[in-house]
Amino acid sequence: MERVYNFSAGPSMIDESVLQKAAAELVCYGDKGMSVLEMSHRSSMFMDIYNEALALFKELMGVPENYEVLFLQGGATLEFSAVPLNLMTGSRVADYIDSGNFAHLAAEEAKKYGTVNIAASSRAENYVRIPDLKTAKFTPNADYVYITTNNTIYGTRYIELPNTGTVPLVGDASSNILSEPIDVSRFGVIFAGTQKNMGPAGMAVLMVRKDLLGKADPLCPKVVDWTIQAKNESMINTPNTFAIYMVKLVCEWMKARGGVPAFYEYNQAKAKILYDYLDGSKLFHNPVVKEYRSLMNVTFVTGDEAKDEAFVKMCTKNGLLNIKGHRNVGGMRASIYNAMPVEGLQKLVAVMAQFEKENA
Amino acid sequence: MERVYNFSAGPSMIDESVLQKAAAELVCYGDKGMSVLEMSHRSSMFMDIYNEALALFKELMGVPENYEVLFLQGGATLEFSAVPLNLMTGSRVADYIDSGNFAHLAAEEAKKYGTVNIAASSRAENYVRIPDLKTAKFTPNADYVYITTNNTIYGTRYIELPNTGTVPLVGDASSNILSEPIDVSRFGVIFAGTQKNMGPAGMAVLMVRKDLLGKADPLCPKVVDWTIQAKNESMINTPNTFAIYMVKLVCEWMKARGGVPAFYEYNQAKAKILYDYLDGSKLFHNPVVKEYRSLMNVTFVTGDEAKDEAFVKMCTKNGLLNIKGHRNVGGMRASIYNAMPVEGLQKLVAVMAQFEKENA
Repeated sequence: MERVYNFSAGPSMIDESVLQKAAAELVCYGDKGMSVLEMSHRSSMFMDIYNEALALFKELMGVPENYEVLFLQGGATLEFSAVPLNLMTGSRVADYIDSGNFAHLAAEEAKKYGTVNIAASSRAENYVRIPDLKTAKFTPNADYVYITTNNTIYGTRYIELPNTGTVPLVGDASSNILSEPIDVSRFGVIFAGTQKNMGPAGMAVLMVRKDLLGKADPLCPKVVDWTIQAKNESMINTPNTFAIYMVKLVCEWMKARGGVPAFYEYNQAKAKILYDYLDGSKLFHNPVVKEYRSLMNVTFVTGDEAKDEAFVKMCTKNGLLNIKGHRNVGGMRASIYNAMPVEGLQKLVAVMAQFEKENA
Repeated sequence: MERVYNFSAGPSMIDESVLQKAAAELVCYGDKGMSVLEMSHRSSMFMDIYNEALALFKELMGVPENYEVLFLQGGATLEFSAVPLNLMTGSRVADYIDSGNFAHLAAEEAKKYGTVNIAASSRAENYVRIPDLKTAKFTPNADYVYITTNNTIYGTRYIELPNTGTVPLVGDASSNILSEPIDVSRFGVIFAGTQKNMGPAGMAVLMVRKDLLGKADPLCPKVVDWTIQAKNESMINTPNTFAIYMVKLVCEWMKARGGVPAFYEYNQAKAKILYDYLDGSKLFHNPVVKEYRSLMNVTFVTGDEAKDEAFVKMCTKNGLLNIKGHRNVGGMRASIYNAMPVEGLQKLVAVMAQFEKENA
């Protein structure tokens, strides 16, 4: 069976060499006589995998020494609750910058636990840009400022981070982690679901500056408490051992190919192929304000629903899957994470050109 | 590489045929051109897998029509918090039967959210038995009564369930789910982590009677709210798609081998081999009150720490792994879930006999 080009927003493509390695050792891991799925999370054989995954991830991200890195269940969405439960315990006010669907959902969830101030929002413009940071209204004594570094549904990304002074910056980097250089030291907390650039679904990786631990609300569930998880190497209960193993394989693959700088260069080249085509097209149009264009999620529309539908069908026929846009935006979306090869982009624009010719 | 017999308490053995199937389709699932790890959880190809997993699990467990079955992240330990957050909202009093370490931890966690009444406990007897239900002190208007149906660390199991009248019974069946017949209709809520009898770590399967939905505390994180998850087919966010797929494979394997009744018979025969040996041994001893002996986790000690250690080493040398007991009990523990073949038990007692002869 030939593999397709999968433009899914997540779960999403994993490099075939990574999948081949996982498949080859799924029944027996090395000389251990058992699958990684069967290993006790407390065993030395699994702890070796855990420690390798942790070290590789820290190396690729350049995580400073004064940060803990946690492997947590529940995905980024559980962290929408975990952020206020772990940090909104001082002034009980937090600032949120509303740059898209997930930023909005995170703010809605935080309202359960304190006062949420929307410091800036591009909601009224259907999120076609990152909100203007210069006019943002920050709360001086906020417990944190929350941003979503890349907006999966709308195809935008931050090109500069807000300067929050002594207020910790919290970032959800689910859809651009490991795809471009991110200065972790600018964040108090930064996290990402694994299912886009790091492996399968079912885990989030979270980095937290150590001085921000110890502030959790007494009502915070134990599993959700970063301080307890940090003290227990993310194993207050059985972690998602397979996802930890897959993060190790993906990080090994990334490191062998030059790490984040190499992927950043590759991702810029990949995105350019599609944006260049879109900028020259008379049929397809990218609705995002240019400077905020995401490298990971490219949205485009024809302005005609019937044509959008016909184009999605043509893509599927050509082995280009999951190109349909999110219902909030309509049209199409190509999610082109680290594991999407440049050939996928070349084939996509070839199909776009053919469709445009046939529908001129 | 020859596969070992893995007596780990969890994650634990998965049948080799299941692992072979998972390995064979890990790079490309059927004619889909992608791995199950890469599938969008919203795609029809993944929803087919989800629906099969759900239907097979319901069939094997005999889940009545008036129950929702949820696939949740965070393992059973997050459910220690989820149970009070979803149910402890009426009288805000709940009864817990303290039959072991995880029952104790569940009760401790619930204290964050209301009043916990320990209705019965065998803690003072180091949990060598299930507490006496006849002398249990139940609260008439409790929001629920909580039990752990099988105690992984101490090797005990309930042989009859408490009669709680109209108060819902909540059960953590992590270590005996699908290993013996369980009458779901006796429970308001029953759940289990997947990493013992259902597949890899990183998920819990939860059954909840529909009339118990809609009671969650306003502070319950969205991901932890059973009502919201039930309305969204457990997909309020991206679920652990690989674990759902593995549950499907494990349920297919179980069904092909006769389902729960066949495994119950097999598990009784397997446990009998070890208990019979223990009852005849002059060196090894099972500390549990006989009638409460678990079929899944068999604890045993020599009474001499040096001998225990020497025996564990001898087991490892013979391909019998993870036989060391939990630190709370000491000695040894053989976790013999559905996927442990009878040959593993035969080999274990052979090694025990040899050790006993050499250490007489």
